[in-house]
Amino acid sequence: MGRWEPNTRGRLEQAALELYIERGFEQTTVAEIAERAGLTERTFFRHFADKREVLFGDAGAWHERVVNAVVGAPPSAAPMEAVAAGLQAAGAIFQENVERSRRRQSVIDANAELQARELSKLAALASAIRDALHRRGVAAPTAGLAAEAGIVVFRVAFERWINQTRPQDWSPLVRESLGELQAVVASEEVR
Amino acid sequence: MGRWEPNTRGRLEQAALELYIERGFEQTTVAEIAERAGLTERTFFRHFADKREVLFGDAGAWHERVVNAVVGAPPSAAPMEAVAAGLQAAGAIFQENVERSRRRQSVIDANAELQARELSKLAALASAIRDALHRRGVAAPTAGLAAEAGIVVFRVAFERWINQTRPQDWSPLVRESLGELQAVVASEEVR
Repeated sequence: MGRWEPNTRGRLEQAALELYIERGFEQTTVAEIAERAGLTERTFFRHFADKREVLFGDAGAWHERVVNAVVGAPPSAAPMEAVAAGLQAAGAIFQENVERSRRRQSVIDANAELQARELSKLAALASAIRDALHRRGVAAPTAGLAAEAGIVVFRVAFERWINQTRPQDWSPLVRESLGELQAVVASEEVR
Repeated sequence: MGRWEPNTRGRLEQAALELYIERGFEQTTVAEIAERAGLTERTFFRHFADKREVLFGDAGAWHERVVNAVVGAPPSAAPMEAVAAGLQAAGAIFQENVERSRRRQSVIDANAELQARELSKLAALASAIRDALHRRGVAAPTAGLAAEAGIVVFRVAFERWINQTRPQDWSPLVRESLGELQAVVASEEVR
């Protein structure tokens, strides 16, 4: 990208999200996205493989960040603690722009195919977290359970984060959601 | 179905699973399934809307069974306890035939589109369990967390169940998996 096209990717993304919300994901064409952004289709395809990648293109970067934080947690950290550290680190990717996450989510919620795609991405993240825990020496059933529990915590925290009415940090929401999951899961034996 | 076609659905299903494993799901045609079962395509379509429904046609029945058991758990049962009762009840649907579940799972594991479909079905089950908990008077964050935790427990228990080397009952596997999830999730505060 040349210097004469500042934040091209961001402009394309914003135009795409606007159109997906206004007209629906299916009904929006790449030509329309490029036009709204004041750019060409060719420029669009230099940044995204297709319409869907506008929504999911970031996944690689933030999955990597989660995995690195899980692997890099202190050696003394319990598996679930390492997973929580991973989820907290993910916030750096999306924390700056809650409106963008909110729009993206509303587009996905309105389309069954995109929802399925989102579920697949989260399942892939669970596998990546499980593998990261293996690298920490965590054995099979525990690693899988901690990874899956992490995805549950992520989804609850993320829903809260995009529905925030006042600015709220991501990390405390992860802690809060994990605390609630602990209480819910543990209560089975109490009564 | 007439009396002259005993267990037509079962024969079609078995033929389909065999072919999906031998040739792959994508490569198998309805004509081949019918032929293998010694029946007509027309008969196939009286039982299944398409190839995929052979794998997912039961979901309605077992989701309903889970939901009914969650709703019908003793009033004193904690949310997670009601969810566990629901998951245990589901076993009645598939418990009789571990080989069938095993084959079905191997077909799904080999195909990305089927995996996505399976994830969507489990997400739908989570929503149904959450709604069932609402009907028990369980409030929003707890109901969602207990439902999602239930899906995690289900997946771990089911994986163990289909990988069993000796005949094993379903219900104790649900208890065991839930116990492990409790331990994993709780350990975050311990160290």
